[in-house]
Amino acid sequence: MNGGRRRPTIEDVATEAGVSRGTVSRVLNGGHYVSPVTLDTVNRAIKKTGYVVNQHARSLVTQRSESVAFILSEPTERLFTDPNFAVLLRGCTQALAEHDIGLFVCIAASHSERTRIARFLAAGHVDGALLVSAHAGDPLLGLLGSASVPCVAVGAPLGFESKVSYVAADERGGARTMVEYLRQLGRTRIATITGPLDTSGGRGRLEGYRDVIGGSFDESLVEEGDYSQDSGERAMTKLLERHPDLDAVFAASDVMAVGALNALRRAGRRVPEDVAIGGFDDSSAAVAARPALTTIRQPYHRISSEMVRLLLGAISGDEPSAVVLPTELVRRGSA
Amino acid sequence: MNGGRRRPTIEDVATEAGVSRGTVSRVLNGGHYVSPVTLDTVNRAIKKTGYVVNQHARSLVTQRSESVAFILSEPTERLFTDPNFAVLLRGCTQALAEHDIGLFVCIAASHSERTRIARFLAAGHVDGALLVSAHAGDPLLGLLGSASVPCVAVGAPLGFESKVSYVAADERGGARTMVEYLRQLGRTRIATITGPLDTSGGRGRLEGYRDVIGGSFDESLVEEGDYSQDSGERAMTKLLERHPDLDAVFAASDVMAVGALNALRRAGRRVPEDVAIGGFDDSSAAVAARPALTTIRQPYHRISSEMVRLLLGAISGDEPSAVVLPTELVRRGSA
Repeated sequence: MNGGRRRPTIEDVATEAGVSRGTVSRVLNGGHYVSPVTLDTVNRAIKKTGYVVNQHARSLVTQRSESVAFILSEPTERLFTDPNFAVLLRGCTQALAEHDIGLFVCIAASHSERTRIARFLAAGHVDGALLVSAHAGDPLLGLLGSASVPCVAVGAPLGFESKVSYVAADERGGARTMVEYLRQLGRTRIATITGPLDTSGGRGRLEGYRDVIGGSFDESLVEEGDYSQDSGERAMTKLLERHPDLDAVFAASDVMAVGALNALRRAGRRVPEDVAIGGFDDSSAAVAARPALTTIRQPYHRISSEMVRLLLGAISGDEPSAVVLPTELVRRGSA
Repeated sequence: MNGGRRRPTIEDVATEAGVSRGTVSRVLNGGHYVSPVTLDTVNRAIKKTGYVVNQHARSLVTQRSESVAFILSEPTERLFTDPNFAVLLRGCTQALAEHDIGLFVCIAASHSERTRIARFLAAGHVDGALLVSAHAGDPLLGLLGSASVPCVAVGAPLGFESKVSYVAADERGGARTMVEYLRQLGRTRIATITGPLDTSGGRGRLEGYRDVIGGSFDESLVEEGDYSQDSGERAMTKLLERHPDLDAVFAASDVMAVGALNALRRAGRRVPEDVAIGGFDDSSAAVAARPALTTIRQPYHRISSEMVRLLLGAISGDEPSAVVLPTELVRRGSA
């Protein structure tokens, strides 16, 4: 396999197989006038070098497939239970449609699915990829990078920040705004339910919390969730057990905040009188919650359009770049 | 364009261009030793015949992309608001994963998107397609048929029943069961909210209703919906205006039944005391409704696995076939 970003060429295959470029061409073109032994040698060289025939062949008729992939590194379930994905998908679909480019949704829940999708993308079936919810160590990031597949991530792709373009909300700044707001309400025992700490969003929102809490930071006021409602409910229950006196909680997503609301209700706490809750995202879950959630608005419309802009740039050969967008406090009933 | 199911070959291109097969091969292989005029002639012949380079080239390295498309001919919104699609998507994803085949979701809401997707599929980027919610006249059916893309539809694809494999619930039988049940409850003024009448599901469920109503069929007791909650609410409102004395309604989907529930509540009607409601699908919407819906269960698990079985068959060259699965009455609070 070639280590750099360059795609293997017919020449690479010829060198590997120890045959002429013309012989490789004949094999690629149907194997006429090629001995069975040479055919086998060249086919093995094609596999070994990772040479992708499509790219070569397709470029003659059309340079592009006019389609990009929207890759969700989460269980299928999450597509339907986390309202943020629907909003991003809708925004990206619309922004791409303006360029007459289609969007396919790929669910990459398991390692084997991620590997299969990377193979599909490396074969050039789509022009690029939007990576949603990539976790640190996600093999897709490395696989797509080495296959030179144009891609753009939502949120900084941990470990690949300089190699892959990304669009992110100001996670840390947004979290800081929320926790400062809870402080201004006079709350003194502020807990936090974090997102997954192998994502830049999870880490950035925890950092924003620490920025405000400062010297009085107490690890036992922190519980990690995975952005699901269940995880928010479980985390809130644990926090209440450890700190029955807590008077506020910053949940790193609205959906987790809804879970926390349920746990507080079961524990007989009033929101916001006894415990104030701040969320993050300003998703449909924030509006549907009772009380409606005070939260940090992510500019999803701009995130989608910037993702598409960067992806089209990456497809035409631009170097990776990052866009970080400001967030905004939205006050409702929960804090 | 070739009319039959056969894919255009290099020979077809050569004949069209008036050159030798070898010349076409050289063009496909990079255009070496080909004059600019010939290059242009061959490229135009490639476009005219619809010859797809990928199929030829790719088959040398790997016969398949290990991926199929899940094509939803509805607005993006619908993927998230109609629980049936999530269930089908999950079922098909799981069934395909057992064969190490990935699934991509394509939203084909507009005519231009359908055309683009058909082009993508015809280029051989995926091994086959699952067609969800195809309406009569959907250009995808014709386009995929003429491009010989293996595909399987959910529900009988109107106009293509003998050409495209499909898996359907017994729409007519299920509707009949529900309307007979409402009759047995002693209801005499039974209205119906149909699905879109350009789909086999919409038509079949209306036929089942007519089967039971028989000679006393009254068109003013019928309103067409599009399976959305809004359409169910609007249809129920109209039916109530025309027939304030109606005592039962069969909604051809649970989601429309929920819309009908809202309209009845606003009109001050009690369910099931004043008006009994029967749904169709047994989706999550049926369980979440208040009162929970009496409905017709579609065997989604079997539908998914049969779709995947037929698709794998189609990919290996099987002739089209149809599978119709029985439904079941599920009694809850609404009737």
